[in-house]
Order: sequence, then C-alpha cells, then structure tokens
Amino acid sequence: MAKKKLNVGLIGYLFMGKAHSNGWRQASRFFDLKRDICMHTICGRNSTAVEKSRKQYGWDHMETDWRKVVANPEIDIIDINTPNDSHAEIAIAAAKAGKHILCEKPLAMNVKQCRQMLQAVKKSKVTHMICHNYRRIPAIAQAKKMIKEGVLGEIRHYHARYSQSWLVDPKAPRLWRMQKQYAGSGAHGDINAHIIDLARFLVGEFDEVSGQMHTFIKQRPLPDNPKKMGRVSVDDAAQFIGRFKNGALANLEATRFATGRKNHIHIEINGAKGSLEFNLEDMNRLKYFDNSVPLDRQGFSDIIVTQQNGVHPYVGQWWPPGHIIGYEHTFVHTIADFINAVAEGKSVQPTFEDGLKNQQVLESVEKSANTRRWVKV
Amino acid sequence: MAKKKLNVGLIGYLFMGKAHSNGWRQASRFFDLKRDICMHTICGRNSTAVEKSRKQYGWDHMETDWRKVVANPEIDIIDINTPNDSHAEIAIAAAKAGKHILCEKPLAMNVKQCRQMLQAVKKSKVTHMICHNYRRIPAIAQAKKMIKEGVLGEIRHYHARYSQSWLVDPKAPRLWRMQKQYAGSGAHGDINAHIIDLARFLVGEFDEVSGQMHTFIKQRPLPDNPKKMGRVSVDDAAQFIGRFKNGALANLEATRFATGRKNHIHIEINGAKGSLEFNLEDMNRLKYFDNSVPLDRQGFSDIIVTQQNGVHPYVGQWWPPGHIIGYEHTFVHTIADFINAVAEGKSVQPTFEDGLKNQQVLESVEKSANTRRWVKV
Amino acid sequence: MAKKKLNVGLIGYLFMGKAHSNGWRQASRFFDLKRDICMHTICGRNSTAVEKSRKQYGWDHMETDWRKVVANPEIDIIDINTPNDSHAEIAIAAAKAGKHILCEKPLAMNVKQCRQMLQAVKKSKVTHMICHNYRRIPAIAQAKKMIKEGVLGEIRHYHARYSQSWLVDPKAPRLWRMQKQYAGSGAHGDINAHIIDLARFLVGEFDEVSGQMHTFIKQRPLPDNPKKMGRVSVDDAAQFIGRFKNGALANLEATRFATGRKNHIHIEINGAKGSLEFNLEDMNRLKYFDNSVPLDRQGFSDIIVTQQNGVHPYVGQWWPPGHIIGYEHTFVHTIADFINAVAEGKSVQPTFEDGLKNQQVLESVEKSANTRRWVKV
Amino acid sequence: MAKKKLNVGLIGYLFMGKAHSNGWRQASRFFDLKRDICMHTICGRNSTAVEKSRKQYGWDHMETDWRKVVANPEIDIIDINTPNDSHAEIAIAAAKAGKHILCEKPLAMNVKQCRQMLQAVKKSKVTHMICHNYRRIPAIAQAKKMIKEGVLGEIRHYHARYSQSWLVDPKAPRLWRMQKQYAGSGAHGDINAHIIDLARFLVGEFDEVSGQMHTFIKQRPLPDNPKKMGRVSVDDAAQFIGRFKNGALANLEATRFATGRKNHIHIEINGAKGSLEFNLEDMNRLKYFDNSVPLDRQGFSDIIVTQQNGVHPYVGQWWPPGHIIGYEHTFVHTIADFINAVAEGKSVQPTFEDGLKNQQVLESVEKSANTRRWVKV
Repeated sequence: MAKKKLNVGLIGYLFMGKAHSNGWRQASRFFDLKRDICMHTICGRNSTAVEKSRKQYGWDHMETDWRKVVANPEIDIIDINTPNDSHAEIAIAAAKAGKHILCEKPLAMNVKQCRQMLQAVKKSKVTHMICHNYRRIPAIAQAKKMIKEGVLGEIRHYHARYSQSWLVDPKAPRLWRMQKQYAGSGAHGDINAHIIDLARFLVGEFDEVSGQMHTFIKQRPLPDNPKKMGRVSVDDAAQFIGRFKNGALANLEATRFATGRKNHIHIEINGAKGSLEFNLEDMNRLKYFDNSVPLDRQGFSDIIVTQQNGVHPYVGQWWPPGHIIGYEHTFVHTIADFINAVAEGKSVQPTFEDGLKNQQVLESVEKSANTRRWVKV
Repeated sequence: MAKKKLNVGLIGYLFMGKAHSNGWRQASRFFDLKRDICMHTICGRNSTAVEKSRKQYGWDHMETDWRKVVANPEIDIIDINTPNDSHAEIAIAAAKAGKHILCEKPLAMNVKQCRQMLQAVKKSKVTHMICHNYRRIPAIAQAKKMIKEGVLGEIRHYHARYSQSWLVDPKAPRLWRMQKQYAGSGAHGDINAHIIDLARFLVGEFDEVSGQMHTFIKQRPLPDNPKKMGRVSVDDAAQFIGRFKNGALANLEATRFATGRKNHIHIEINGAKGSLEFNLEDMNRLKYFDNSVPLDRQGFSDIIVTQQNGVHPYVGQWWPPGHIIGYEHTFVHTIADFINAVAEGKSVQPTFEDGLKNQQVLESVEKSANTRRWVKV
Repeated sequence: MAKKKLNVGLIGYLFMGKAHSNGWRQASRFFDLKRDICMHTICGRNSTAVEKSRKQYGWDHMETDWRKVVANPEIDIIDINTPNDSHAEIAIAAAKAGKHILCEKPLAMNVKQCRQMLQAVKKSKVTHMICHNYRRIPAIAQAKKMIKEGVLGEIRHYHARYSQSWLVDPKAPRLWRMQKQYAGSGAHGDINAHIIDLARFLVGEFDEVSGQMHTFIKQRPLPDNPKKMGRVSVDDAAQFIGRFKNGALANLEATRFATGRKNHIHIEINGAKGSLEFNLEDMNRLKYFDNSVPLDRQGFSDIIVTQQNGVHPYVGQWWPPGHIIGYEHTFVHTIADFINAVAEGKSVQPTFEDGLKNQQVLESVEKSANTRRWVKV
Repeated sequence: MAKKKLNVGLIGYLFMGKAHSNGWRQASRFFDLKRDICMHTICGRNSTAVEKSRKQYGWDHMETDWRKVVANPEIDIIDINTPNDSHAEIAIAAAKAGKHILCEKPLAMNVKQCRQMLQAVKKSKVTHMICHNYRRIPAIAQAKKMIKEGVLGEIRHYHARYSQSWLVDPKAPRLWRMQKQYAGSGAHGDINAHIIDLARFLVGEFDEVSGQMHTFIKQRPLPDNPKKMGRVSVDDAAQFIGRFKNGALANLEATRFATGRKNHIHIEINGAKGSLEFNLEDMNRLKYFDNSVPLDRQGFSDIIVTQQNGVHPYVGQWWPPGHIIGYEHTFVHTIADFINAVAEGKSVQPTFEDGLKNQQVLESVEKSANTRRWVKV
C-alpha cells in the first residue's frame, strides 16, 4: 500500500544540495521508510542554475525565493543547504510555518542564533536535525555501539585531526568560505565542527578548552577578478586541547593546509579496556584494540564494517559483506532516520540542541584563542 | 531539451538486479548522458517478489516471462542478470529482437554458447556489453590509463588473488552457485572471471595456462531442507599459473575459502619501469611505484583516486577530492558508458567478444585441471 | 693499523645500559670509526647485578662508585645512563675530569641544572652529546635531509603523538619514573622530550606553548610491597599546542595511557610543497607526499629507508635494501658519530645545548599547565 | 662460572659471512647459552679481503683454505656460507672431521648432494642445521605456535610470494648467482627455497606441484668487463601451484623482477577457523583473523610481535614491547638455538633433512617446468 508522501523543499543546490538530493532520492530505495518521499521543490537564487539542478537531481519544481518554499502548504520538510549566514533566518521561518527541518552544519553563525533556532523549533514542536552526517558512517555508528556497551571502559583520550589541503595553493580564490561575514569561521566551523560533533557523540561533553586559530595566507585573489586580492578573514587552521566532563583529555585540530590530505579525519580514542581508531579516507573500516584478548594475539583489529543487518549498523541495507560504500551514503542514512522520526513524530539525533552545543564549543575555542586563556565551555 | 528516452528491460531482480537497478536510476543524475533512461520493466519468475522489487527499485512495470520483455517493442535495452545457464538463450532472443544488450558475467556456460551469443549480436548489429564492472573502478581505469601511457614499461608479472570466505562454514547451504548445471563452475567462473578480465584489460591476452580446481566441502545442506545434503558440483577454489602472449607471467587464484576475506582482490603488476598494486577492499586507492623517482624517495605511492574530471576517470562526477565512492558506483559508470554507446551506435568495451575470450581462458584452465597439463588458450 | 682505543666508562646498567652497551660493542663492526673502542668499565650501585651485566654485555671491568670511574685516568668517555636526578652531578664531575660525555635524555631535572652542565662541558672543551637516538633513525635522518633540501617548502604543521600503554593497568607498580624527585616529570620528560627534540631537529625552535598535564591514576602499589600504595607525583599524559619561531603550528602529545600502543610515535609534517609522515613502530619507513608529481599520480609514497650508502643515511652499513633494522641500531649510529667527533675534537649534534633547549620547552609547557596561560619558550 | 667455549670456524665472508659473524658475536649477549662461543677462525680464498673481514667482524684467526679449518682440532663448529656449489664438499668433510655444522641454504646443488650430506652428518652423529633463518623471525615462530595450537583449524591455502627487484635493470652484472654451475638455480633456489621452507614449517609436506621458471633477461654484462655479455643460465622468476599432503592448496612465486619490492615476502595462510598474514618488510608484525570473535568485531588483528618472554618467542630477549628488531636478529636466534643444541647433543630444526626435503620440492618444480606436467614430490 502507498504511504502518504512527505514533500521536501531543498534550499541550496550546490555541493550539499547535490549530496542531499541524492539522499532524498536513494533513501526509500535501500531503507524501509515509514513514509514515502516526494522531492517536491529545489530552491536557489540563480534561476538558470537551479533549473539545471532540478532536472539533474530529479526535483519536481524549482523556486528562487526560499520564503515561497517555506510558505508552500504542500511542503512538509525544509532542508537547509545554504551558506552559514542564512541558516538561522530560514530555519526560524520554517519552524514558524510548522515545517520539519534538516539543517546543514554548522547550525548558525554564533551561539545566539543557535539558541533562537532551537527555541523556534521547540515552540513549533517540529522535528529538527542538524546534518552531522558522519555520525551515520557505519564504522562510526559501530564505534558508538561498542562504546555504549562499555568495551572501551573509562575513556582517557580523544585525539582527532581533520586535515584537508585545498588552500595550500596561494592562488586558490577567496570564496565565501574564507569570509567571516558569510562563513563565521574557516576550518574551525567547517571541519573542526565535525570532529567536535564526533567527540560529543562518542565521548561526551567538553568541560574546558585552550586553542589557537591561524591564517597562513591572508590575501587571496578574488574569484571574479584574480588580479585583485581580497582579505581572508577566517582561520586556515584551528587547534585546541581540552578536557571532557568525564575526565578524558581532548586534542583536536582542523586544517586546510595539510598538503596531501584531501578529506582526512584521523581519530583515536583510548579507553581503559580498549582503543578505537578511524580514518575517514578508509571510512568502511574501524580499528579496535581489545585488552582482554590473550596477550600474544593482541593487536588493532581492522574491522571492515560491511556486515549484514543485526551485525553492523546501516550498511547491510546496501550490498553483501566486503562491498564498500562511499561518502554520500552517510546522507542517505541520515535522511532515512530523519524521515522515520518525522513519520512517528519523534526526535532524532543530532538535534538543533546538538548544533547549539557544538557552537558553544566552537565559540569557546575562539574565545580562548582571542584571550589566550583556558575557557569553560 | 528532453532527449528521447531509452527503455530498459531488466531480467533478474536479486543481488545483481538491485545493483543494476541502482545503476539505471543513478546514471543520469551524475553523468551527462546522450539519451535519457526509462526504467521500463523488471522481470522475474516469482511475481510477488518481482513486484516488491519493482516498487523498491523504481521500475514502471513488472513481468514474469522474459520472452514478453524481449518481445515488447517499447523496450530498447535488455539487461540480463539471471543465473548463468539462461544468459545465452535470453541474449540470443534479445539480439534477434534487435535489442541492445548488457549481460552479467560470466557471459555463458561455455565457449560454444559464447560464440553463438557473439554471432547473434554481430548479426543484429546491436550494442553488446558484458558487465565486468570492475573495469570502471576509477583506480582500475586509472591503472589502464597509466599502462597505456607506458609508465610501467614492459610488463613482467600479473599476480592476482580474489579471495572470499562465504563458504568456509560447512553449514552454508548449497545454492545454485554451487551446482554445475546452473553455474557452470564455482569460484572459477564467478570470481576468477573478474581477475581474468582485469588481466586481459590491463596486461593482454593469455597464451597458455596450467591450473587446478578444488572442492573442499563436497556436500552441503539443501537450502529448503537443511537436514538433507546435496552434492557440490563446482570448485571452491581455482588457481592457475600461465603466460601472456607478450611474455608476462600470470598467477591467478580465486577462492571462497579465505577466512577473513570478504570480497578481497589483491592485484600486483610489475613492469620494467614501475609497478601497480590494487586491493578491492580499498578500491578508491591505487598504489604506484615509479622507478624514475630519485632513489632515496622511491616507494609505492598511495594514490587516492578521487580527483576531478580530467585528472582521474569517472570519479569527478561524484564528489570533491578525498570523498570516496563505493561498490555500486562501478555499475553506474558501466551503464553511463553503455547508454552513450547505444545512443551513438558505437561499440563499448568489454563486449561479448571479451566475454568469449574470458570464457576461453576459463575453459582452458578447466581443461588443464582435468588433463593435468599445460593448455594453449 | 690499530688505532689508539678510546676507553669508555658506562654509568648505569639497566635498560639504557643494555642498549648503550650494544652500541659500544657494535659500532666498530658496522661503521668505519676514526678510533677503536674499548668497553672499559661498567658501573652501578648493586655489585652483583653490575657484575652480571659486565659479563653479559662484555665490559672489561666493573665498578660500584661512579666517582671512581670519572676519576680513572684511563677512561676517555663517560656515558651516563642513570636516573634523571643524577645526570647533572655526574656530567659536571666528568667534564671537570676532562672526559667526553654522552648523556641520556632528558639532560637533567630542570633548566638550571642543564645550564650548569652546559657551562661545565664548554669550560672543559670536551665533546658532549645528549642521546636523542631517534635523530639517527635512518628514516628521520632522511626526513632531515629532505627538509634541508627544501622539498617541503615552508612548514605549516608539526603534529606528533608519542603513545604508550604501560601504565593503563592500575596495578602497574610505582617505579622511580613515577616520582617527581627522581624523574622530574612523567610522560612529559620521558617521551614528550623525544618528539620535542624531533620537532627542533626537523622544524625549528619553539616560540610559545599552551599545555596541560594530567595524572589519571594517582596512587599505585609499591614495587617492594604491593599491598601498600604510593603517590604518583608525575604526569601520565602531557599535551600542548604551540607555535614555532618560523610560523609553523605545533601539536604534541605524550601519553602512557594509549591502550594498544606499545612505543608508538606518529609524526606528520605539512609543508607548502610536500608532507612527511613517520611512525616509530614502522621505523624503517618514511611516507612522503610531493605536490610536484602529476596530479593523477600524487599520493603518500611509502619509502622503505634501507638503501645503500649515498642514498639513505646510516642504513647502508648494515644489510642490502629491504632488510630492515631495529630499535637498537639508532644507538649504534649515535655512538659511531660520537666516536668520530671525539676522535676529531669536533662537536656533534645533539649537544648539551640541545638538551638545554629541550628542557626549556619542557619547562615552558609545565609552567603553562600550572598557570593555565600561554608561555614564551 | 665460565662455560667451556665452542670454537667456531666460518667459511665464507661476504653477505652471509657478515650476518653470521654478527650472530656469533651477539648470541651470548642477549641469550642465555649453555656454552660460550669463541669466534675462532674466518676463512675465504682472498687473503686480503678475509683479513679485513676478520678485523671488521671480530674473529681471532683467518685462513684461506677451508680444509685447514675443517682439519683444525680446536674447531668445534663449521659454519658454511660459501656459494652453493661448495656446500656439499665442505659439509661432508666437516662431518667426517666430527664438526657440528650450520650450513646456509639451499643445502646443496641437487637432491643427490643433499642425501650425501645428510648421510655424512648422520654417520658422524654431529649436530646439523640448515640456516633457514626466517623460521626464527618472532612473528613466524608465533605463527607456528598458533598453528600448532590449532587456532587456524584445517588449513586450506598457503599463498606466498617472495619478490625482489635487483635484476630489473638490464645493466645489472652477471654474478655467480646467475650461473647454473655455481648457484644451481636463480630466484628458485635462492628465495623460493625460503617460502618453501616456511610452507613446510607452517603447513606440512608438499604432495605434488606444477610450475614454470622463466628468464626475462638472458644476457648480462660481465662484472669485470661490462662491455662483454655473459649468458644468464638460471631463472629470474619461478612460480608453482601445488597441493600439500594434508589437502591444503599451495601457490608460491619467487621473482627478482618485481619493481619496487626490495625483499618482500607476502604470505597468507587460510584455515577453517582463522587466517594469518605476514610480510617480511614488516617482519615485527603478524596479522591474525579469528573466526570465533563476535562478528561485528572481526578483522585482521595487527599483532606487533614484540612482547616479553613467555608471550612472544625470542623477541623478549631484546627490548621492551614496541621496540622492533631487524633482519640480522633472526641469525642470532638461529645461532642461539644451534649452540644450545650442540651443547646438549640434541637435534635442532631445520636439519639437513629439512634441507633435503626442500631440495626435493625445488627439483620437483624444476622437473615440472621442464616436462610441463604435474610432478609428485
């Protein structure tokens, strides 16, 4: 029997728009959803480009004014994929219109905006989710399951580095991502936010932090006129040490200047009974060291997280063991869980509250970098 | 402007049916195709199961008699995903009906059938392709490009092992894949066929071979009645050494008894100027050793094959560098190239002739195993 | 022709005594030294144990009072391998006696002692060296060579973690290494000192730091009486972020609580033109990413640093390419260079001045941890 | 108390002479031997070169005629490190003189010689050992222990490749190792012999084989006169498939033409309950897959084989966990076990009988390559 469809309005059509479109298209093909999905409207300011994306990604309608999408009574869900400075306004409007909301990270430009957004969704009682898609990498979901079962024991260390290299070239143009007024921050909000989220997901809440942020290249050619230079007003790299409320030590670093690293996250978590290691560029694997194995056979086990349902999370919906999945599957998993939560009127992690807490950590690090002191989160 | 759609009829709806359905659905979303695709009809013998798959995978119609699909004048393309023993009959009928054909590997049960199929498609002048999807793993396509450019120099060794473990458990049931009359052979035709195809793609034609095939567990429980045992009439493992026409040495092994290996292909190719190494379980990577680098810096380079168009093949259509893709993408690439070939009335590798040549190698190894002598391919 | 031998007196006979003894024994067997070595006297307080070590390691004489060794006019070289709190006294006495000195790290308990030691050796004009043996791992020496040649360009990041796990077990006894009065500090002086030294060797001088130090388990059983507990007065883990004078960012962490890590150092150095990666547990390898390679072939090269003389440093004295060496070889290399420097009356890095500078970084981090502020080095 | 020393005479002073000298020098420094060792005499035909080696490696005497060493009543042990064609003559003479014998591999030029040597040592009742040093890599000894304990269950596959690259360059000179009259065979006897030995050690006896041997470059410059070319009369690569008596399948390949591989052995052993993987270039590690681990945590464990005595074999005599050892340590382990066997009048594996059985496999493969048929070992 046909389930009543949920109509989705997607705001934003670039990199994240492409990834989310794929998520909406594929979710029902691989997961048993409680409601069917209708890819109703895609929205962006450039009508030619949006129409092209509409056809390419398979949306029914296009729109150039996000307010009309939010106002459209047919639409059930608003999916926000725009630059960071517009998240708050769109989300608050969507909440007021009673739409369920999926919003790209970082949730907003600052803690204040995040609070307003959280207030709005709570008031409207809509389902709200921030798209920290890496939580639903099967290997990360498996790590979460293992930690929850206590296999690591008391956690002592969370050591993570998110390293990219796309700004190593001084000729790389100054995009919106390098301007404070649109992006809020640089590597910090863009990619540190991811490993902060994974830290909160896997280890717990941060207690205090000491960090620094740095801009290696302070002027870059403008995209439209490469002969003219524009100021880079965000960080190229941000690093901090800290402490979790449960006593574990934290060490996080994000950089766009790690030559050779494309989209590399290395995480190591050390507990009293075991350790976990993860690398995003080998995202189908999770390495696990178990202190309880006979000593002559102990070593980090290289788990290929591709087993069937009931064994490994999410991945069994795709292919048989050993057949790996890729980056975009994490959005499909996120959207599948989101749809089921909407269908049942339930909450689904990570919520806007997670987005707020993430922003609090981000801001604490920024404050620490500015004041050159430790800051309580 | 809308391009006239090509209507596809898919025969078979299980593992390969799911993978191919995804390919037909996704191809136009990520690749600029010369013709649009209509997922017209999915076909299988069990009407309930096929109808379920139709809905799940997004086909317009369903059918339980493949002959009707082949006879349907609306259908342009027949995609064959059935057990191996029916490939020849369906393909020959489809060719006679003037349909373009994509056929799963192995092409057929024996060389004789392959020849008849090749004859049929040649006579009908339809586009024909065997789905050796691993050729379109970006790392493999990149390897091909490099070899073609001569970066390896004269090739001396092709050393490959395809190892799985799904039959290690003696309680694993006897499926059609373990019966000679349906499958033709076991690990040999199922997975040796893949590394034989990659050998032919990357190195060249085989000259002669000496091999052995072995069945470790000769009786297995029947799937419907696990208390009753049925005979396993195919090989659990097949291995052969040989020689290519260009003088390189070959060493290939396929097994379903490699405990711990899920879907593992390890390939090493050694040439006079360089070497390549590939592992399917890390399929976004290609390792390359270059003899011309200064000696103190020589080492196998771990290339993450995820760069933009014009740099790495296929993968730039998906996501930015460092964002990996998975198993099913290889079917999308295959189908994208197939559609463009059909649109332009061109041939596209690997053709049924490649399927025939693959079968000739498979049969030569079987003959060698039976006669315990070297056999000319 | 026989060269006049240099007589060595070794103070300390435990772990480091064993490693240094091996270095003195092997150096002339694999390296062309400018002077021969005589393993003259080994010294320690427990006469039975020292005599056992004398025989086991091949020293001519034994002694229980280090003052007698230092006073012995036959002795040319004093090699200090005692607990950290006695380094200064022994070294200063040895310098006054005109002995050349090799001293284990950390140089002393604090900056003040280091200064006194440096003053003493400078006044006596003896050759002085601190045994930071990891500088002479061939892969590290190769890294140094490459950085010096400019292959990395401007360096942006030094990211290092030294992780061990020997204190994870709360029943591990409280040794001298866990007592401030003997060891000075814990993981910090013991193993952070190593990656600080490598940072100074490979990247440059530190400018300022912000760090924290932490003791996870504050009481441990006494070695002689496991029923009684003793206080752990040093850090189990120490981590800091910082800045080099050349503008690069630093991130260093040392811990004895990384379950599964035995003696693991992971270092990544990112420069404008390339990157290097090193892991002590794979110490024969150096990974190198070169931005100037054609984009489709870029990747971290896994260099096995085992080539002949003139290609890779040190290692060609041992075995043919591909035949790896181990931990103790780094002491042989250190001692070979030290002997040649003594023979020629030259200085040899790392000197006591390096030991002093290392101590300044260590103390700055401690001060930062105590004051919770950034500290200039 | 001083133990009576065993006097050693070493015949041969080149690569193996250097490695064995180090073994004799180091064994008593790290292992508790039942007898002390005296490095009595080193022997070779070129007196200047031998005298240089004598001093360099620390032997008491030198000699240019091996017969005199064998005849010397002071000598207890003869260690044979000469080219393969002289092993038999020297060993038989040494046996007749009542010397205990350690002999480099391959034992001799052919099965006939091996039989004569075995007969000679049996008749004289001396201790005899063939130096297959890789058996005493701690990771291999650990693998043996695990297999013996049954952790792999019934073994199905032994898949091994020994790959080097030192002959890739056509200008590499024609040494004795490339001439049949001195070397017997090429890659086959030199390096296939090693992985045959490990197969026999870890899996069992071979039943039958089918192989091929190939010479890629048939003429090479003479070492003394590079303008003149000499014929290469041995194989550059040798590969074979086969069957063990216990039913496991074998796949072995040895080549000197694997560009990029210096001294690479990759071995994978698959059993019903688990698998092992080993790579000589990472010789301190053993990878182990255990079928009995909960399915969501299964993966190949990367065991760093460096734990203390009672946990891992041999390696605890050296350094603490995580401190790796290198190539030459395997000779130290071999010699330590040999000395203890001599001291106790016991046998020690691998004996000359192992050398004979190894030669039988080598010859069976050669016969198979010549007759192009399967050959019973």
